[in-house]
Amino acid sequence: MESLLSHITYPEDLRKLALQQLPQLAQELREFIIDIVATKEGHLGASLGVVELTIALHYVFNTPDDKLIWDVGHQAYGHKILTGRKEIFETNRQLGGISGFPKRSESTYDAFGTGHSSTSISAILGMAMAAQLNNKTDRQHIAVIGDASIASGMAFEALNHLGSTNSNVLVILNDNAIGIDPSVGALKKYLTNVKKGTAKDENIFECLNFHYTGPLDGHNMDTLIDELNHLKLVSGPKLLHVITTKGKGLKKAEENQVTYHAPGKFDKLTGELQKKPVRENEPAKYQDVFGHTLVELALKNKTIVGITPAMPTGSSLKYMMEQIPDRAFDVGIAEQHAVTLAAGMASEGLIPFCTIYSTFLQRAYDQVIHDVAIQNLPVIFCLDRAGIVGQDGATHHGVYDISYLRCVPNLYIFAPMNETELRNMMYTSQLGLKHPIAIRYPRGRGVQEKWQTPFKKIQIGTARELKTGSELAILTIGHIGNIVSDIIKDMAKSEKIGHFDMRFVKPLDKNLLINIFKRYKHIITVEDGSKMGGFGSAILELANELGYTKKIHILGIDDIFIEHGTVEQLHQQANIDRQSITEQIKMLLNE
Amino acid sequence: MESLLSHITYPEDLRKLALQQLPQLAQELREFIIDIVATKEGHLGASLGVVELTIALHYVFNTPDDKLIWDVGHQAYGHKILTGRKEIFETNRQLGGISGFPKRSESTYDAFGTGHSSTSISAILGMAMAAQLNNKTDRQHIAVIGDASIASGMAFEALNHLGSTNSNVLVILNDNAIGIDPSVGALKKYLTNVKKGTAKDENIFECLNFHYTGPLDGHNMDTLIDELNHLKLVSGPKLLHVITTKGKGLKKAEENQVTYHAPGKFDKLTGELQKKPVRENEPAKYQDVFGHTLVELALKNKTIVGITPAMPTGSSLKYMMEQIPDRAFDVGIAEQHAVTLAAGMASEGLIPFCTIYSTFLQRAYDQVIHDVAIQNLPVIFCLDRAGIVGQDGATHHGVYDISYLRCVPNLYIFAPMNETELRNMMYTSQLGLKHPIAIRYPRGRGVQEKWQTPFKKIQIGTARELKTGSELAILTIGHIGNIVSDIIKDMAKSEKIGHFDMRFVKPLDKNLLINIFKRYKHIITVEDGSKMGGFGSAILELANELGYTKKIHILGIDDIFIEHGTVEQLHQQANIDRQSITEQIKMLLNE
Repeated sequence: MESLLSHITYPEDLRKLALQQLPQLAQELREFIIDIVATKEGHLGASLGVVELTIALHYVFNTPDDKLIWDVGHQAYGHKILTGRKEIFETNRQLGGISGFPKRSESTYDAFGTGHSSTSISAILGMAMAAQLNNKTDRQHIAVIGDASIASGMAFEALNHLGSTNSNVLVILNDNAIGIDPSVGALKKYLTNVKKGTAKDENIFECLNFHYTGPLDGHNMDTLIDELNHLKLVSGPKLLHVITTKGKGLKKAEENQVTYHAPGKFDKLTGELQKKPVRENEPAKYQDVFGHTLVELALKNKTIVGITPAMPTGSSLKYMMEQIPDRAFDVGIAEQHAVTLAAGMASEGLIPFCTIYSTFLQRAYDQVIHDVAIQNLPVIFCLDRAGIVGQDGATHHGVYDISYLRCVPNLYIFAPMNETELRNMMYTSQLGLKHPIAIRYPRGRGVQEKWQTPFKKIQIGTARELKTGSELAILTIGHIGNIVSDIIKDMAKSEKIGHFDMRFVKPLDKNLLINIFKRYKHIITVEDGSKMGGFGSAILELANELGYTKKIHILGIDDIFIEHGTVEQLHQQANIDRQSITEQIKMLLNE
Repeated sequence: MESLLSHITYPEDLRKLALQQLPQLAQELREFIIDIVATKEGHLGASLGVVELTIALHYVFNTPDDKLIWDVGHQAYGHKILTGRKEIFETNRQLGGISGFPKRSESTYDAFGTGHSSTSISAILGMAMAAQLNNKTDRQHIAVIGDASIASGMAFEALNHLGSTNSNVLVILNDNAIGIDPSVGALKKYLTNVKKGTAKDENIFECLNFHYTGPLDGHNMDTLIDELNHLKLVSGPKLLHVITTKGKGLKKAEENQVTYHAPGKFDKLTGELQKKPVRENEPAKYQDVFGHTLVELALKNKTIVGITPAMPTGSSLKYMMEQIPDRAFDVGIAEQHAVTLAAGMASEGLIPFCTIYSTFLQRAYDQVIHDVAIQNLPVIFCLDRAGIVGQDGATHHGVYDISYLRCVPNLYIFAPMNETELRNMMYTSQLGLKHPIAIRYPRGRGVQEKWQTPFKKIQIGTARELKTGSELAILTIGHIGNIVSDIIKDMAKSEKIGHFDMRFVKPLDKNLLINIFKRYKHIITVEDGSKMGGFGSAILELANELGYTKKIHILGIDDIFIEHGTVEQLHQQANIDRQSITEQIKMLLNE
């Protein structure tokens, strides 16, 4: 059969097809996605699940004049391919290539940039209200949002507002019963009842004043197109409930939906995952060190609980959920709730390890201040994926946490340079800390061959002098300190260089710093985070306060958004890679 | 009749009363609250509305062993009076006195500190889960939450989690159809239908797996006590829907619920507000300057819209809502939604003025970064009540905004020193700014006799040299600069002192600062905000980067939580009052 996809560059090409050609196009689009993701990697399952929906939406609606927002955006690969980016789709998530998420600067078809969940209904309502004011009364507005994302508080706020307006908005609930991990919560149970027909007459969306339709088979092109054409004529807020299968069309992806959310490289025909070559003595991921260490501690300390907002697999809290299920909780995409839940538990003597990606803790910033820090409750925040995260790009880098947490009184901030440090700080935190603490560590692997070392208590506010020197002190925070250690090892005049793993951004090791300010002619700070108000700034503030008026050479991320690429590429961009740090050292040592 | 209240210090005393005595106690408690608030000021309406509920809860439940959380806490005055704080209630909200909100450090009866809305369900669920783990299976857990607060996303996240557990939690929905301003949204409409009996069979809380009871008359003591006793025996998540009248028992307060939320001084018998003496030429409140200026601009510029999350009166957006209702929106307690709604509008060419209290923008921090700043959408944030706010205390001071916003790329940060500056920056912002901007100003009055000055454009990133000097440069940001101006006016050797109103925290006026760093021997910075990563820190970072290694004397709020008191008292505590600044100046000038 002749290829249809090869003739389609934009939706206007798609709209020339006959209705009965669309299933073939769906098949081709699915294969195209599988072909590329199989070798270039990326998010797979979500996009496979909405192939029919994607085609139907662009077929029925007049994009980009009609506005279409993909919540989170993991599922937008088909959308990208059909909207002018087929030829460059293989650059997905690569440095200089297209983004893995919808992005306004990339295409007029990307009506609103996404990445974090549950923003789409607010944004589309804003556009619909703008259309009303601008008398664009026939413009259509569509937000596609998953069942995991619609359960997040922000989406409810938007539904609550939208339902009280007469705005012309269609919310499509893409119900596949899974986010990255399986969906949780009462709403999920309710939606399951709706699907099974065991729900009562009532409908939760009708309560909120929506015109509700569904549930509909999201893989049946005819039904979808019929209903979308019908809904075009319904004014006001409306919700279409569509049932889809994540990973649809690739058997292994349907069967292992968590694994195939972002499976890495795989065989495009069988779906078989490509085995990564096992490097001997390869260090463990920080995530796994966290996950296994938490189990180890929790088996001994019965007051420990674990909380994750929808990231049991990514954060490795899954190990505790498997082994100690009554004390480990996935609360869904609900960062705000996760933090205050932890505060409630801590107020009753439990020791909550609340693991949240650095970028997502931004969602719970008020709760950290208001519910945890003001009450000085000893919640232990494990901030995963702190620093540059790589291919997920600007929306996901965890580079602001030091800056936004540093101003919060009562809160300690720690960053481990290696696996042992992470373990020891987790151990120390559950011994009866009198303060909340944030422990930030990056995505990816540590540096040690063996990480299951015996626990040692870390004294709060103490740094480690890794190497003494005569002229230049390098102060590092967290994992990036390993680059500095490596540089020093390979340097000729390394006797001039002192290296300090500061460990705590707060409280700073004041005594040690006073000595450093006195003894060293030059000071460099290095952090995998924003320079504005960050770790280097903290060192500078202390020096200034103590009256040491010495220039501090601060290496960190400048005041710009960093895009996507490998961590190494982006560290280069930010001048915190090996070469940039080396150049800074050489400049100061006049070499 | 003999007083009952005089014999009650703790709930155990209350529980000795006969059921039929409780209405009399309610009457006395109501009068007690009115008596004190009439002269000492504070929040009135909310507490009057829950007098019966407060008595019933402490009568039926075994507080403090049973856990009771008051959402927001405006309504907890009766609770405080019945739980050991009757004698000191007149110190409410005063320096060294009791807090206007529940506070763990104040009483074991305050199970969880509140202040910001919608946290109570998360916290009580945390406690209930802790009780399950600790085998305290007969402990009761109650959260009282208003209809405005339960519509906030965080509360929905908690309901969604709670409904999927078997935790023993009673959520009491205190439905009075008003927060500080009247409630909005689809849920509010739905609840109105429930009250009128016009809702369908369906119930939104039953959809979420709650045992629902109601609606019940919240002023009928017998009904309340019966139902609470019954619900004690119902296990799992349950919701009791109670209808109350805000301001109940004081006619004027019932009739003017917005005014009597926090009415200031009033006649305790008639409710008549005590007229504040009108000072001649008294400056206007920044809030009113904002509110009226926005109307003035919006009448000319049809692309301007106004958004407030539930604070139309407090922020003075009400003026635009009254005069241009189709372009000014109260979206309810939904800061996250408010910000992304604004982003959606801005992406379609509207110019949204999104006014949010500084402390509440913490709730929408991720949305500021992810939806506004990354996409560089020109949303204008008017950050009301920035800096120390006074009697509301630790939960409400807006002192972190500079620190948490400074690290966000693309975002400008401006603080007006007076009314004209605020007006001119609002004017400038709607001329076609290419970036988002945060304009922060304090609660309360400006300094000018007349604020309706003709608009002038402000050049982005330029400061004002108010006075030149020979030795000491004082750099101030925002309204607090007026204290410095006053000090200088009254000083003998004022020719030594230069004063600069920096206006922009970001971008800084680099050229001017280079001159200042070169010319002045001493530099002081003054801000009404946290020192950690704040304005002074920004100046210090720039000086360091440019190689000016000069000590910067940073005056601002130390790394502790400031409690409640008058703004003047708290500025003294923070050493940013007239006297502290004067001392710093004299010390540097060796006087």
